Amino acid sequence: MHVRVNAAISADGKLSSRRREQIAISGDDDFDRVDRLRAESDAVMVGVGTILADDPSLTIDSADRRENRREKGLAENPARVVADSHIRTPPNATVLDDSAETYLLVSEAAPSDFVAQMEEQDATVIATGENRADLAGAFDELQSHGIERLFVEGGGEIIFSLFEEGLVDRLSVFVGSVVIGGRDAPTLSDGDGFVEDFPQLDLERVERVDSGVVLEYDVPA
Amino acid sequence: MHVRVNAAISADGKLSSRRREQIAISGDDDFDRVDRLRAESDAVMVGVGTILADDPSLTIDSADRRENRREKGLAENPARVVADSHIRTPPNATVLDDSAETYLLVSEAAPSDFVAQMEEQDATVIATGENRADLAGAFDELQSHGIERLFVEGGGEIIFSLFEEGLVDRLSVFVGSVVIGGRDAPTLSDGDGFVEDFPQLDLERVERVDSGVVLEYDVPA
Ligand SMILES: NC(=O)c1ccc[n+]([C@@H]2O[C@H](COP(=O)([O-])OP(=O)(O)OC[C@H]3O[C@@H](n4cnc5c(N)ncnc54)[C@H](OP(=O)(O)O)[C@@H]3O)[C@@H](O)[C@H]2O)c1
Ligand SMILES: NC(=O)c1ccc[n+]([C@@H]2O[C@H](COP(=O)([O-])OP(=O)(O)OC[C@H]3O[C@@H](n4cnc5c(N)ncnc54)[C@H](OP(=O)(O)O)[C@@H]3O)[C@@H](O)[C@H]2O)c1
Repeated sequence: MHVRVNAAISADGKLSSRRREQIAISGDDDFDRVDRLRAESDAVMVGVGTILADDPSLTIDSADRRENRREKGLAENPARVVADSHIRTPPNATVLDDSAETYLLVSEAAPSDFVAQMEEQDATVIATGENRADLAGAFDELQSHGIERLFVEGGGEIIFSLFEEGLVDRLSVFVGSVVIGGRDAPTLSDGDGFVEDFPQLDLERVERVDSGVVLEYDVPA
Repeated sequence: MHVRVNAAISADGKLSSRRREQIAISGDDDFDRVDRLRAESDAVMVGVGTILADDPSLTIDSADRRENRREKGLAENPARVVADSHIRTPPNATVLDDSAETYLLVSEAAPSDFVAQMEEQDATVIATGENRADLAGAFDELQSHGIERLFVEGGGEIIFSLFEEGLVDRLSVFVGSVVIGGRDAPTLSDGDGFVEDFPQLDLERVERVDSGVVLEYDVPA
């Protein structure tokens, strides 16, 4: 499986403010770039923290791109994947609507009535890991469902876990020309953090987009 | 006074790991860029958090640049400024050596015996603010000592305060091709963080340096 991570951060590395509200960091050209990357993917993934904060749809905005996928015999929208160990995704979350397939990566500790409720809403529940979704195992299962190109849109907790497990192949970051600040604001990569063996990246492309810049990294194996 | 802030961050916005140990984020070319900026300044400032973590000298590395300053009738090294409300700078800190003038920006709550001890070591103590150094007031005082070009090298707590008080004129950031991670690792701008009226920046220059990129921002008044 090929895993690409993308996020928009402020000049000081934040995904949003300490209130975890969605903040306009990028602009129309970057939204379009992200929309294209979604359209080129088999699935778009976020952590449940992002579902709870933003209730995103994770679908393709451009009608042309959706049409293009249909012409190729693909589903109009890529599948949606939520890493959600104990099922905190609310039953009325937008990712559970019928505009795309949805996978929930849960742990074996996810309450079975919640699992049943999600399956009733046509979500596919993949259980790995005792208390937290085991991402590597879950990705193998996703692959058996035909998901080869996974596009991860955050947040910082799930991105850290992906780096920790060596699962990231590519990272693109829009760096916006704004300061958010806050020692408790979410950043591109949170979790416990590395203290040695920091993942090294290869900066492959630098492009000015909107009033900021996109940094495109390869992540050597 | 003209205030320029500079720091080296990882691709995820961190100044160092959660252990607050100094980490090689940039390389020789960026060190040289920073050395040049120091040489062009009247004073180099950090918060006491950086003194305690790194014990930096804040002096100019290049003999040519020091010689150049002497030829212009300037001190070999710019002055050093430490924001340190209660005087936590240890008496044996490198910034208290005799290679440059040193100013301590303290609050009125700084213990008078500590003040005396710092003055014995030839540091100039500037007291503003009741319990925390009032940066705007302290900068006025620094200006009366002839400091017109102030170069701030971090860390994240002091940088946030400077943005909060609208004291930053220019920001340059080296973004290194490495992931540090950690919800508790220091970032470019920590403090309480903004929740509205986020400081907007103008991205003026993007330049590849070492294996990363330098982003150069103007900060509109
Ligand atoms: N600017 C952008 O591009 C962007 C993009 C996305 C999000 N955001 C912002 O980011 C914030 C949310 O980020 P976040 O870091 O709080 O949440 P997140 O990364 O979206 O979700 C984190 C949650 O995922 C679950 N999870 C399941 N398996 C995991 C694993 N193996 N490792 C880590 N987490 C796992 C955990 O909850 P369980 O333990 O319950 O499973 C964890 O709390 C919001 O403020 C949102 O607005 C911004
Ligand atoms: N990568 C880089 O370029 C770079 C550069 C510098 C530092 N660093 C790293 O950053 C970390 C240190 O950063 P930090 O954020 O902890 O410390 P910091 O910003 O260097 O210092 C913060 C301290 O300054 C004092 N201070 C005085 N007046 C203040 C004011 N008005 N507003 C805010 N603070 C004021 C406060 O202590 P009092 O309340 O006691 O006064 C505060 O705790 C270390 O890990 C260091 O290695 C990295």
